[in-house]
Amino acid sequence: MQSAKPAIRCLLFDVFGTVVDWRTSIIREGEALGRTLGIDRDWPAFADAWRGLYQPSMNQVREGNRPWVRLDTLHRESLVELLERFEIPGLDDDQIDELNRAWHRLDPWPDSVPGLVRLKTRHILATLSNGNVALLTNMAKRAGLPWDAILGAEVARHYKPQPEAYLLSADLLGARPEQCMLVAAHNGDLRAAAAVGYRTAFVARPTEHGPGQHKDLAPEADFDHSVGSMIELAERLGC
Amino acid sequence: MQSAKPAIRCLLFDVFGTVVDWRTSIIREGEALGRTLGIDRDWPAFADAWRGLYQPSMNQVREGNRPWVRLDTLHRESLVELLERFEIPGLDDDQIDELNRAWHRLDPWPDSVPGLVRLKTRHILATLSNGNVALLTNMAKRAGLPWDAILGAEVARHYKPQPEAYLLSADLLGARPEQCMLVAAHNGDLRAAAAVGYRTAFVARPTEHGPGQHKDLAPEADFDHSVGSMIELAERLGC
Repeated sequence: MQSAKPAIRCLLFDVFGTVVDWRTSIIREGEALGRTLGIDRDWPAFADAWRGLYQPSMNQVREGNRPWVRLDTLHRESLVELLERFEIPGLDDDQIDELNRAWHRLDPWPDSVPGLVRLKTRHILATLSNGNVALLTNMAKRAGLPWDAILGAEVARHYKPQPEAYLLSADLLGARPEQCMLVAAHNGDLRAAAAVGYRTAFVARPTEHGPGQHKDLAPEADFDHSVGSMIELAERLGC
Repeated sequence: MQSAKPAIRCLLFDVFGTVVDWRTSIIREGEALGRTLGIDRDWPAFADAWRGLYQPSMNQVREGNRPWVRLDTLHRESLVELLERFEIPGLDDDQIDELNRAWHRLDPWPDSVPGLVRLKTRHILATLSNGNVALLTNMAKRAGLPWDAILGAEVARHYKPQPEAYLLSADLLGARPEQCMLVAAHNGDLRAAAAVGYRTAFVARPTEHGPGQHKDLAPEADFDHSVGSMIELAERLGC
């Protein structure tokens, strides 16, 4: 009964991978660090390893093994571990903080800003990311991402895909889940959103994980939309 | 030691009265309702009465007499009381909800948008309002208020002037209080912000409460700035 659904009021966006190209951006930051320190490392491997510690670090919070902690803190703990593993010498605390804020400086995919600008004309646009508010605010300011509100894990104090992250973000916008659509490049995220009543839009990002990506190449469930860019999503939604 | 202070990274704004002219806007909504219902009432008195119930209703939450509840809910409870007091007949629940969202439709003071646009070029701009996230997001969308983030009482789950509202909003932006400046038209709000380490800017809004306003006409403490408009604040801060 597609026609019986209420109008979509709010579009909520996964950010890492969906809106921004974290891998290319972190590789760029690594290469710049290498030039500064005069060292040569496998920066793509470094980027993948940093992202590889992302889910395990959040699991400690999701499973209740540690109290709520924002993603900046988890990213920094992972970074300290990787600085040792990749034998990157001699950064002081301020330099580690600065490198950790690489996640605040991720570049958008080329279609993200023009697509979001169009989508914003008819919908409320909010982040629904596991990134923390400062990270997402700084990223948006640098990249020109035109969010109406910065929401997600930190304000819900639950990491996706826990249902509270989706439900509390919708509630903060004064919207019922069925008035919200999650836009994401990841099947698991979209399935979790659909399970609590969200509408869903899959955006293909086939190089998020680099040239050999083998997952999330196509939608694996009956999502409301499946598109190749934010611009295509704007067209689908009549914006 | 003004020169020893860190740079101001974030400007946080009181909203009702400081950025938007709630009184004129609520009077306008009342007059429209009167035309619709074919009734004549003292709409300025209605607006003042609705705002008059604002602080008492939040006190119930501040003092722990009821659990956290967002401002939309408090506004609606006050409205139901006033519909009876002003003998406004026969609105159903949806119509009361719609009238309650008058607070989502407040107009900005004429200097607010141009001033904020200039301030945004060099600072992170966030709300630090007792309004809830949906109210502030809808208001910003309608009025063109260019916030980087929507923060304040609802995400902190504490109403100003409780210190948590200021401290948690700064923390969400990854900023220390001394890197934040509260911009407000109210001495009490600014004093509470200064008490937890914020910088402060008083913006005079001498007609917020109408032609007979007798409070908050001038700064009553040694705030960092005292200005007559957001444009003047932008000039003071070199934006």
